[in-house]
Amino acid sequence: MAIVLGPNQFGKAEVRLVHVDRSTPVHRITDLNVSTALRGDFAAAHLTGDNAHIHTTDAQKNTVYAFARDGVGEIEEFGLRLARHFTGAFGWITGSRIEIEQYGWDRIPVGGAGHDHAFSRAGAERRTTVVTVDGDDAYIVSGLAGLVVLKSTGSEFWGYATDRYTTLAETTDRILATEVTARWRLTGADHDYGKLFTSIRTILLETFASVHSLALQQTLYKMSEEVLTAHPEVAEIRMSMPNKHHFLVDLEPYGLDNPNTVFYAADRPYGKIEGTVTRDDADPAGPAWL
Amino acid sequence: MAIVLGPNQFGKAEVRLVHVDRSTPVHRITDLNVSTALRGDFAAAHLTGDNAHIHTTDAQKNTVYAFARDGVGEIEEFGLRLARHFTGAFGWITGSRIEIEQYGWDRIPVGGAGHDHAFSRAGAERRTTVVTVDGDDAYIVSGLAGLVVLKSTGSEFWGYATDRYTTLAETTDRILATEVTARWRLTGADHDYGKLFTSIRTILLETFASVHSLALQQTLYKMSEEVLTAHPEVAEIRMSMPNKHHFLVDLEPYGLDNPNTVFYAADRPYGKIEGTVTRDDADPAGPAWL
Amino acid sequence: MAIVLGPNQFGKAEVRLVHVDRSTPVHRITDLNVSTALRGDFAAAHLTGDNAHIHTTDAQKNTVYAFARDGVGEIEEFGLRLARHFTGAFGWITGSRIEIEQYGWDRIPVGGAGHDHAFSRAGAERRTTVVTVDGDDAYIVSGLAGLVVLKSTGSEFWGYATDRYTTLAETTDRILATEVTARWRLTGADHDYGKLFTSIRTILLETFASVHSLALQQTLYKMSEEVLTAHPEVAEIRMSMPNKHHFLVDLEPYGLDNPNTVFYAADRPYGKIEGTVTRDDADPAGPAWL
Amino acid sequence: MAIVLGPNQFGKAEVRLVHVDRSTPVHRITDLNVSTALRGDFAAAHLTGDNAHIHTTDAQKNTVYAFARDGVGEIEEFGLRLARHFTGAFGWITGSRIEIEQYGWDRIPVGGAGHDHAFSRAGAERRTTVVTVDGDDAYIVSGLAGLVVLKSTGSEFWGYATDRYTTLAETTDRILATEVTARWRLTGADHDYGKLFTSIRTILLETFASVHSLALQQTLYKMSEEVLTAHPEVAEIRMSMPNKHHFLVDLEPYGLDNPNTVFYAADRPYGKIEGTVTRDDADPAGPAWL
Repeated sequence: MAIVLGPNQFGKAEVRLVHVDRSTPVHRITDLNVSTALRGDFAAAHLTGDNAHIHTTDAQKNTVYAFARDGVGEIEEFGLRLARHFTGAFGWITGSRIEIEQYGWDRIPVGGAGHDHAFSRAGAERRTTVVTVDGDDAYIVSGLAGLVVLKSTGSEFWGYATDRYTTLAETTDRILATEVTARWRLTGADHDYGKLFTSIRTILLETFASVHSLALQQTLYKMSEEVLTAHPEVAEIRMSMPNKHHFLVDLEPYGLDNPNTVFYAADRPYGKIEGTVTRDDADPAGPAWL
Repeated sequence: MAIVLGPNQFGKAEVRLVHVDRSTPVHRITDLNVSTALRGDFAAAHLTGDNAHIHTTDAQKNTVYAFARDGVGEIEEFGLRLARHFTGAFGWITGSRIEIEQYGWDRIPVGGAGHDHAFSRAGAERRTTVVTVDGDDAYIVSGLAGLVVLKSTGSEFWGYATDRYTTLAETTDRILATEVTARWRLTGADHDYGKLFTSIRTILLETFASVHSLALQQTLYKMSEEVLTAHPEVAEIRMSMPNKHHFLVDLEPYGLDNPNTVFYAADRPYGKIEGTVTRDDADPAGPAWL
Repeated sequence: MAIVLGPNQFGKAEVRLVHVDRSTPVHRITDLNVSTALRGDFAAAHLTGDNAHIHTTDAQKNTVYAFARDGVGEIEEFGLRLARHFTGAFGWITGSRIEIEQYGWDRIPVGGAGHDHAFSRAGAERRTTVVTVDGDDAYIVSGLAGLVVLKSTGSEFWGYATDRYTTLAETTDRILATEVTARWRLTGADHDYGKLFTSIRTILLETFASVHSLALQQTLYKMSEEVLTAHPEVAEIRMSMPNKHHFLVDLEPYGLDNPNTVFYAADRPYGKIEGTVTRDDADPAGPAWL
Repeated sequence: MAIVLGPNQFGKAEVRLVHVDRSTPVHRITDLNVSTALRGDFAAAHLTGDNAHIHTTDAQKNTVYAFARDGVGEIEEFGLRLARHFTGAFGWITGSRIEIEQYGWDRIPVGGAGHDHAFSRAGAERRTTVVTVDGDDAYIVSGLAGLVVLKSTGSEFWGYATDRYTTLAETTDRILATEVTARWRLTGADHDYGKLFTSIRTILLETFASVHSLALQQTLYKMSEEVLTAHPEVAEIRMSMPNKHHFLVDLEPYGLDNPNTVFYAADRPYGKIEGTVTRDDADPAGPAWL
């Protein structure tokens, strides 16, 4: 028996980068949160504190900023540039993982048109990507997070299994609310990532709105299925959709009915529904999700 | 010398209320965070634990839900209904303060039109009001919070005082970013609160975008002044506009210039700019801001 | 009628300063979050963008770090040094407000003794002060925040007023939990601030523990009264003690009783109890609380 | 090619449970955040909205509270009870994962002794466990999170690889600060979990304090190695130790030196160091980490 070093990585997390494209008077801004991680042979640093193989997290941060000098492009492209650079930077670095969140900004409307260089934050939603390079192979998992949606009707929940601890009343009309985290693994390369993101986001939203829901699982599956059907470049999709409970308030003690109009929005606990939808012939995921 | 009870109040904070208006198939949702507070003679509870004057915070919460049964209306109206009710509920309650935050929801677009009953959260911004009733008098301070805006140019900062500790370089072109908290005190009553909010919000955004800024103070003042000029029902406006610093990254060590394109968005510390703009003949504020 | 500039201030918020006293091998660390604000004649910056009177927030931050060079001392002393410096820095600056939070660190025990230079964070509680200088006058409000306490018995709640909306059951044995924010205004000067803080904190904790509570208001008052009784240098004390509800879970549906043992700790809403206890001959507070 | 359902699970997240042991006048409190997840055949709910296999998250929550009726014990034991119950609850449920965080409470000292039933929260640190049951097999990963530690000296960083983007200065004396998340996988069963936790926590703290650090990786490895050496029941340990940077402030512009005493505590970005230390003959992890 021996004690040995297992999987390990290090990098700089949450590098906040804002790029302004000033090539025309109509500025474009790209607002990112970039996290890097390197994989390879870092045993000496762990075992003896010998840092000869350590590519400092400070230099990783500097690289992120330097690589933005001539523009960022789509986050998947920026992630690939960084991951490939780090993987080749030193012989002992065999892989890299770049995680990027992008914050949206809208142009402030002035006199009916979007302003050239004034913006307002679009909300809590983020576009995301995780790019993993392992030797010569690259893996891309793109997605979105923080998309909060709600249906005020068109959602039922009944017919579930019951045991001694089941007291929940069945309902044919409830509020369904969730905060969508969706991550989709892409196959192939050189996609039009921006267009693809917009399309998938639209499908997720439209399907959430349109499906008459009998279970949050059903809504989750249908949203995923529609994405896979429309986009052959998506190998699989993983969804996390917490059930943000809205409980009907009992107004009877005050002599009032409540015809599905007054709700209490609860914080905790919340249902947590997670699922994967995939193709049965999808390429192997490799380290894409690690 | 004696030890005495001073100002005190109690209430229920952060009652999360969602109201669904189902009067037509096109649902409307109102998503609120309501906090109540009562003022009056509660000395016995403090001095001896005699609760005869305590109107429980649980009952205050119940009242919020019950009062939503037939609709909420504008948050100022809902706040007034609640504050006046509590103030008259028992003889020893002389005043009440209702604080409401409203979260925005957009209809999910499906096939080019907003969906009847499916919504997505509009972002971190909140519409706010604080309604204070003191006997027969009512005071309303409305506002917004969490409005994050940024200008990628059109902002200078130079000509400031210098001392031994001043090392900041002057600039004629910087990123200006802030998270606006604005609160405006209203005079008179029976306003069209929804329309007023929309108008003030538009003025704040358009002025932020349009003013060529020499100081964040100048931008703050101009935004406030435009609101007061357009709306005689606004007696005064108080603004908090933290300077969310975006620092130009020095790329020279890597042999690169940085023509105002690559920035580091800092978390802390941040500048904090606060100001009040008022009318010299405004009605007294009374307890409106307490 | 004219539109005029009202009260305004600006400064640098949340300057994170860690000072290490290395004067002996037994290091001492002081971990602070410092926020500055200047008051005076800053009209020109607001009205025309003329910054001649602006002492930059960057320089304020630099001053905080420079003033820590030879040690910080008690936070009240550090706040006074900074506030007096800023007030005198330029003729048009008439006052300053310094707000400081201090984070606690414990020595890591190794072999039965505290380590010389290794520490662990003591928790979420902070020691606080707000020092306001207005011309030649100084005001100090010290306190603590984030002190979470709980009694598993020794708390009753009954005998309250009832109306149509009151459904809460009376109880002679409940969990009482709160997060104490206490702020005490000091009179006089040159106190032993560290010793005073320790003493007041002990009084607050011991009184919370020892009082058999009939109302959270009673507990709040008694805690405050004990501080004022023990410390003549405290002119008044303001407390905010949210009622962090722990609801007894109804286990009857599962055939079980619940002899006050199983509770649900709720997030929102929560009761919010606020009160002031003062001396009837206390010095005027001036701008201490603004 | 077909679109198929992949791995999925659902449960109730963040069930806040406080248990009071009143068997003697010296109360003991157990404060937990419990999250459940079920695995098995839930295809019908996804594909058609048929909920016959759905054991509602509401019932899962109820079960957590009901199972606490007669006491909780160590969190690993409570997790095992819950996970085994859920796995056997219905034929189509093949596994369960219970995640528990425990918050610490200290007795308030009164008159030199800990109070019988008054407590203060011990800080942000949590004791954690994740219990996974898969059929008849059980896996336990215990740990801690939120343990913030700092060394004011005894940490060096030099001799690292350099490239075009490396500008960091080498140092032989820096502040080393991190927030430790440690998770250790146990083998065997029926351990004295409370005693084991206390021992491992002590080893982690003492090793952090005692190791003269040449790299955060070295500290991480040594802390892990010591745990594995002392505890044969630990199969592997995974650590996440972000480098919470404390930057020496340059005081030269103000004519001052800075002999390693004045630091700026940065928020973002931060280094992120992650590593696994294991035994070369450890039992397979199975689904323990999923």
